[in-house]
Amino acid sequence: MGLRTPEQYKQSLRDGRSVYYRGEKVADVTKHPIIGLAVEHACLDYRMAEDPKYRELAVIANNGDPYSRYYYLPRNAEDLRKRSELIAASTREGATLVVLIKEIGTDALYALHIIGERMAAAGKAEYRERIHKYHQYCRDNDLAIAVAQTDVKGDRSLGPTAQEHPDYYVRVVEERPDGVIVRGAKVHTSVSTNTDEVIVLPTRAMRPEDKAYAIAFALPIDTPGLNIFATPHGGTVKDAFEHPLSARHKMMETLPVFDDVFVPKERIFLNGEVEFAGLLALTFVRFHRFTAVSYKLPLMEMMAGAAYAIAEANGIIRAAHVRDKLTHLAAYHSTVRGLIEHAAAACTIEDGLAVPNTLLTNVAKYHFAHNYHQAVQIVQDLAGGLLVTAPAAEDLTSEATREYVLKYMGGAKGFDAEKRLRLLNLISDLTASDYGGYQEVLAVHAEGGFEAEKLQAYREYDFKTVADYARKVAGV
Amino acid sequence: MGLRTPEQYKQSLRDGRSVYYRGEKVADVTKHPIIGLAVEHACLDYRMAEDPKYRELAVIANNGDPYSRYYYLPRNAEDLRKRSELIAASTREGATLVVLIKEIGTDALYALHIIGERMAAAGKAEYRERIHKYHQYCRDNDLAIAVAQTDVKGDRSLGPTAQEHPDYYVRVVEERPDGVIVRGAKVHTSVSTNTDEVIVLPTRAMRPEDKAYAIAFALPIDTPGLNIFATPHGGTVKDAFEHPLSARHKMMETLPVFDDVFVPKERIFLNGEVEFAGLLALTFVRFHRFTAVSYKLPLMEMMAGAAYAIAEANGIIRAAHVRDKLTHLAAYHSTVRGLIEHAAAACTIEDGLAVPNTLLTNVAKYHFAHNYHQAVQIVQDLAGGLLVTAPAAEDLTSEATREYVLKYMGGAKGFDAEKRLRLLNLISDLTASDYGGYQEVLAVHAEGGFEAEKLQAYREYDFKTVADYARKVAGV
Amino acid sequence: MGLRTPEQYKQSLRDGRSVYYRGEKVADVTKHPIIGLAVEHACLDYRMAEDPKYRELAVIANNGDPYSRYYYLPRNAEDLRKRSELIAASTREGATLVVLIKEIGTDALYALHIIGERMAAAGKAEYRERIHKYHQYCRDNDLAIAVAQTDVKGDRSLGPTAQEHPDYYVRVVEERPDGVIVRGAKVHTSVSTNTDEVIVLPTRAMRPEDKAYAIAFALPIDTPGLNIFATPHGGTVKDAFEHPLSARHKMMETLPVFDDVFVPKERIFLNGEVEFAGLLALTFVRFHRFTAVSYKLPLMEMMAGAAYAIAEANGIIRAAHVRDKLTHLAAYHSTVRGLIEHAAAACTIEDGLAVPNTLLTNVAKYHFAHNYHQAVQIVQDLAGGLLVTAPAAEDLTSEATREYVLKYMGGAKGFDAEKRLRLLNLISDLTASDYGGYQEVLAVHAEGGFEAEKLQAYREYDFKTVADYARKVAGV
Amino acid sequence: MGLRTPEQYKQSLRDGRSVYYRGEKVADVTKHPIIGLAVEHACLDYRMAEDPKYRELAVIANNGDPYSRYYYLPRNAEDLRKRSELIAASTREGATLVVLIKEIGTDALYALHIIGERMAAAGKAEYRERIHKYHQYCRDNDLAIAVAQTDVKGDRSLGPTAQEHPDYYVRVVEERPDGVIVRGAKVHTSVSTNTDEVIVLPTRAMRPEDKAYAIAFALPIDTPGLNIFATPHGGTVKDAFEHPLSARHKMMETLPVFDDVFVPKERIFLNGEVEFAGLLALTFVRFHRFTAVSYKLPLMEMMAGAAYAIAEANGIIRAAHVRDKLTHLAAYHSTVRGLIEHAAAACTIEDGLAVPNTLLTNVAKYHFAHNYHQAVQIVQDLAGGLLVTAPAAEDLTSEATREYVLKYMGGAKGFDAEKRLRLLNLISDLTASDYGGYQEVLAVHAEGGFEAEKLQAYREYDFKTVADYARKVAGV
Repeated sequence: MGLRTPEQYKQSLRDGRSVYYRGEKVADVTKHPIIGLAVEHACLDYRMAEDPKYRELAVIANNGDPYSRYYYLPRNAEDLRKRSELIAASTREGATLVVLIKEIGTDALYALHIIGERMAAAGKAEYRERIHKYHQYCRDNDLAIAVAQTDVKGDRSLGPTAQEHPDYYVRVVEERPDGVIVRGAKVHTSVSTNTDEVIVLPTRAMRPEDKAYAIAFALPIDTPGLNIFATPHGGTVKDAFEHPLSARHKMMETLPVFDDVFVPKERIFLNGEVEFAGLLALTFVRFHRFTAVSYKLPLMEMMAGAAYAIAEANGIIRAAHVRDKLTHLAAYHSTVRGLIEHAAAACTIEDGLAVPNTLLTNVAKYHFAHNYHQAVQIVQDLAGGLLVTAPAAEDLTSEATREYVLKYMGGAKGFDAEKRLRLLNLISDLTASDYGGYQEVLAVHAEGGFEAEKLQAYREYDFKTVADYARKVAGV
Repeated sequence: MGLRTPEQYKQSLRDGRSVYYRGEKVADVTKHPIIGLAVEHACLDYRMAEDPKYRELAVIANNGDPYSRYYYLPRNAEDLRKRSELIAASTREGATLVVLIKEIGTDALYALHIIGERMAAAGKAEYRERIHKYHQYCRDNDLAIAVAQTDVKGDRSLGPTAQEHPDYYVRVVEERPDGVIVRGAKVHTSVSTNTDEVIVLPTRAMRPEDKAYAIAFALPIDTPGLNIFATPHGGTVKDAFEHPLSARHKMMETLPVFDDVFVPKERIFLNGEVEFAGLLALTFVRFHRFTAVSYKLPLMEMMAGAAYAIAEANGIIRAAHVRDKLTHLAAYHSTVRGLIEHAAAACTIEDGLAVPNTLLTNVAKYHFAHNYHQAVQIVQDLAGGLLVTAPAAEDLTSEATREYVLKYMGGAKGFDAEKRLRLLNLISDLTASDYGGYQEVLAVHAEGGFEAEKLQAYREYDFKTVADYARKVAGV
Repeated sequence: MGLRTPEQYKQSLRDGRSVYYRGEKVADVTKHPIIGLAVEHACLDYRMAEDPKYRELAVIANNGDPYSRYYYLPRNAEDLRKRSELIAASTREGATLVVLIKEIGTDALYALHIIGERMAAAGKAEYRERIHKYHQYCRDNDLAIAVAQTDVKGDRSLGPTAQEHPDYYVRVVEERPDGVIVRGAKVHTSVSTNTDEVIVLPTRAMRPEDKAYAIAFALPIDTPGLNIFATPHGGTVKDAFEHPLSARHKMMETLPVFDDVFVPKERIFLNGEVEFAGLLALTFVRFHRFTAVSYKLPLMEMMAGAAYAIAEANGIIRAAHVRDKLTHLAAYHSTVRGLIEHAAAACTIEDGLAVPNTLLTNVAKYHFAHNYHQAVQIVQDLAGGLLVTAPAAEDLTSEATREYVLKYMGGAKGFDAEKRLRLLNLISDLTASDYGGYQEVLAVHAEGGFEAEKLQAYREYDFKTVADYARKVAGV
Repeated sequence: MGLRTPEQYKQSLRDGRSVYYRGEKVADVTKHPIIGLAVEHACLDYRMAEDPKYRELAVIANNGDPYSRYYYLPRNAEDLRKRSELIAASTREGATLVVLIKEIGTDALYALHIIGERMAAAGKAEYRERIHKYHQYCRDNDLAIAVAQTDVKGDRSLGPTAQEHPDYYVRVVEERPDGVIVRGAKVHTSVSTNTDEVIVLPTRAMRPEDKAYAIAFALPIDTPGLNIFATPHGGTVKDAFEHPLSARHKMMETLPVFDDVFVPKERIFLNGEVEFAGLLALTFVRFHRFTAVSYKLPLMEMMAGAAYAIAEANGIIRAAHVRDKLTHLAAYHSTVRGLIEHAAAACTIEDGLAVPNTLLTNVAKYHFAHNYHQAVQIVQDLAGGLLVTAPAAEDLTSEATREYVLKYMGGAKGFDAEKRLRLLNLISDLTASDYGGYQEVLAVHAEGGFEAEKLQAYREYDFKTVADYARKVAGV
């Protein structure tokens, strides 16, 4: 096959999976008032493949069955560029919220491909074969995949074996002839309520004593013993006038718990090779930060665009300080976009795969993340206090209130009350709601946090060459 | 009398007032699921007056009937310091949310006192008398007062008379022998759903042609023709475990509409004296920004304190970057506190009232406001992604989920899952929720916005002296 | 011919030119103690053309006489990339100081080429021909060219015709059959003490009444009536141990005064076509900011490299805050480099010439400029107070002092006193000397200043597309 | 006596002291072309005591012989405020350069007073007596005192005993019945070329094994074995038109080397009491950072004032971005001034002395230091590129050049070329010269550097109270 319809995707989620929301098991995620939103949002991916406007970008069709571009292994800069473009386009359709049901999973598959080659070169060819098969399986069945990487960690200053109990990092508790039994939990696992599969990766480099924790594998979501706890954050039913983004678009965050789950051999991609655990974690992140910056672009477009639109509606577009602030947003967006486009162009080919330039990717990600809150401040500044004091949707329809709202909420010529309130609600939803808080926390923490980004930039930057230059001029 | 009980306060709100929430008139604000929360929050003021711990700070008792300190006219630096302390203490009790039902109203009364003196000096003594009487009335009846200042403004680049319709600024539409009829609406009017009175002030300086807009007055909330539209922002019923601040504390923001409302003579404090409109607006702001910075102190305490507590719980308190970030929060708080304390100490006495140093107040306010989003970023950074991915309250009580949450959500030694989640939920509520968004927008916009604060600092700073110094050294 | 030797270049400067230094006419610029340094620095350009290491980069040799790459018209992204690389390489040889004797001149020639085409299209083909001929003349004679653009401007809030006297902008005072007489002065004109030619461009858009000011032309430096006033800033003879950069490298800044100078027809490139004045000014800047960012790269390399080297020498390289600061410098450099490389890759072809992407160029320039002082702060922070308290060169050689200096100025293992002092002196010269001040002011002002860069970014950014996106999602 | 004349002060410096400048011993520091400038600058202190305008501020005269206020022990907030005012006033007279010949010395004396009390309380009363006597001696003879605190340190990641040689920190090499022999060197020792005395303090906390390094004492500068190496930074003879600050004002930085110097018993204030070394170092810094912020105030006045004056001269004072930038400078100055004034007001009384609030002092110092380079950027931005491209002093006097300079360097109405150039030269000297670099490095490093200031703020801030508040609201 190769391509599924949205309906086929939804049908595949009705498989008896153990998903819990607010302490209760969810009977059918597609019909849950909150998770159902996330399912609809995820359908965007399948819809775009059917949409003539996006088909060429979203589908690989050269020979044989057509399949989703996400499953295509990037071989050069152009492949990376198109992947980035597809990620941005689907996020743009998602009204600044990433779809993610294939993006992150294929980042993991790319990383596994590279690690598979490295392990083969080190004499362990069996992993490579499993990885290739698993990749084909996902591609040919057009599956949705979550990735679970971040262990719950307990005391974050301690390694896996020094914790109060041994399960703060996911580990193998039993080896069997046909597979392993794993135990533990992974936080911050996006979209696992509504994917077919979850790929589990180690979160960090491991030392020899951490052997049991050096484990990577994949499982169907409905595997016995795998329980998914969905977060309630942002989980209220919302009015679409007041929350034009988050009333329609939702991504679930979860805590998958592996309660002594059996993983069959062919689904194990690393098991005890501690020397490859850190490399796998890092290689995944190298791809995933590129993905992440790609899907932040529509968010920055929206900030600049919404700020411009509301400044017009408020009648302040010509004020000097307003232009200055809009320029700041434009430069913010252009800087991140320029860097990530250049990260694709300046990729390296490793084990046959195109890997985005790691230094530029990390610099782009850090620039995005570090300056996000300031951009929020600017957008809020230009919009005005009505972000949190505007009347309700019903005030525009109720007989008792409607005329007043229409009369008094108007803005500059051409911007009647409804138009202006729609723009204000967009910005309120984007920056001053639980969705706004979600985006702030993602900016800070998703794909690894400030310190991780800085550490990787430090490691990738060529200090030797520049220090030699300084020493030469100094005469040392 | 002089002091009311919380119950008396609540009773006074059941007066048939026209308050609308989501298009419907609210029968009894004290029993409304959302506004009722705001009423309870406001009761803090009356409770503190009864509380031995706060009585001395909250109540003036020297001679005659005791009355709320808010109604005391500050005569010196110490009076300002105590007022600031009281505002901070009540906001601290309000879990970072200001109470405001007397704070802002007395800021307006102080400003009216000064303008009353100035108008008397200009030959219009009647206003002074009205202001004094109104002040006594509010004080002796321990009333709660909202202040409506910001006109809806329409096109913000145009003045009152240049708008598409003449009502974008509140104005007098008819003069009567016994008073005036006013029309218009004022945005961003906090707490008017649950006060006894509203004071209405002009929002800016007026030109001769704006005579009808140079109007200040006070009215009971239940005055016919006065309709209050409450904003729905943040208006959902919340779980107190997940939202320890906002499930319990709420302040209403409103749009009061004056639909041809009659204001009797004795309640008119300015009417057509365009030359005093700007001075009144500005004088109010001079007091109100001092109030504002005072009630931001507990918010900054909370940010530093919550960041410290979660860093401990996460086991990262000794990391160098964590200390650096905590120091930033400490310096942020200390800078603003130091400046506002010094603004009280360096007050000027004008027409018998102590006015906080305007330059220092504006600098303090700007420092708070301009750096708020960055502080949010730091707190979110130290807390971790669980701010938006943590399990629900019910996951800690449901049999099916409880044991997993307890096992996997633990932190550093001494911080079990529940403790850690409580701290995380506090920070999530504080920074990554609609309440967090509310605080961000308040930081940017409340009490006048960045550009207004900067303009006033520019005007207050003594450029002449420093430019003379530069010229002297330059030999010019 | 096509390529000159350094000696030929120097010989060409002994032409009786009117160069004034500290009020006195300079007999021979090549032998002047300060300007002579600048001449030697400029020779780098001619030396690199002879140096096998750089020959391929610096010289175009495909067919016919070889000539300097600077004179090559860029036709595609690769041409721009190589030009950028050459500019960076020569600045690197110049120890962070740009050479500039062909860089800026060819920026002007490229702009003239484009304006020549536009004027030809508008029916004035004669300019295009003159420009082509002048370009060939400079290329074939391997000339050094200065560019004079910034008028002295008088009151900067007023246009050319509103000034206290009419000569605050360079203008035509007389039209003759064979040419024009020009009068005025241009500030910030780099390298004109030691070039063969100067190209004069308008500094801004002109209105119809500014016709006499819409003038562009080129002249040999020794033209009668052209007087060059050199600035004394940084003009002291320095010890090379204490000032490893500025004792050896120097660029002259000048005020060329046109005291009723005759310009022959064939050297006039614009004369009264007010509608092209702004376009010419802007087109020059589009090329020149790309040049500017290219020559800032070695400066940022030096900052990161010197900071790293001194942190090692001081024994603090492993401290967390030091890594953090070094990462900041690495990200600073990488961001600007990534953006400017991408500006070349994303060029547009206009009238046959490759023009670097203007938005990215301006964003890169602004990022460099706006963050420069902070980078200086970091480098100074890591180096230590010895930047301004270290002993003198003579203290290392004098018998009376040498042993003490050697004993006490040592650093971490492997860094003896001399090595460490050399690194410190490098950084002191780079950041805490008149050279350091020069670089700071260049960062702020060269190629047009913050506000100009921001304005151009504002104009180039596609606000329409992003605002449409926001409106669509808002449902407007 | 109690008060000396400037002439007496100068005479006291002709004592055969071993001061080296560029490898050569200086015969008479008062006549040296560079150090002589510093002597004249220092005379400001003695001149102010004679000047009726400053006499009341500069001299304590209540009973007995009048003496310099610096020697007065502060007993309350008002004493600290006056001391701060005196320091600011003398620095203002010094055209932004601190005088320092009594400021820093008395900071050390205050700290010694407190440590003396503490040691007396611990059973070592002899130190207290010596300290009192030494204080009286300095006061009664109106002496100038340098303070040497910062050891040369070698590898800054290692303590005193772990270095490559044992003399990287000043230490006692021999105990004698009547005193000790000390060896070592101290960097960054200001003004010791032209003081009567030097007080030597330990630079950090010491461990038991560092006993020999726990040493504090005072010596006359002309003590045998004490060699002063003056730094050459900024040591060129300058034109007063081009360098209105630094041509007239100079402070020497030195490396005093203690080449087995004998210190008599009565001049030893700490010797081996390792437990008091850190406390002494810290107590000195608590006073000295207060002093430092006091003398930074005129620098910030100058930046705001010079920026304002040049913006006027350039004709840009009404531009929105200019006002914004001036406001930034005003807020910068006002913030630091407000904090340091409040640090005096909020002092604590320790062992009878008023100690400025340490948290506020550190926050003020950090705010000053961390934002200094940005302020420089703004001042340079408003001034323009002429800071480094303006003509020379001689160009204004030479017949050949004068008329051109006068014609073309004019600015806005009322600002002729000379006036404008004087303002530009002031700013160039202040920010874009070796003096500008000196001020930048001082901002970063003087009185202890960023990390030291942040560490002390971290320690002083009351995290416990705020964390308790957070925990209470969180329900933990």
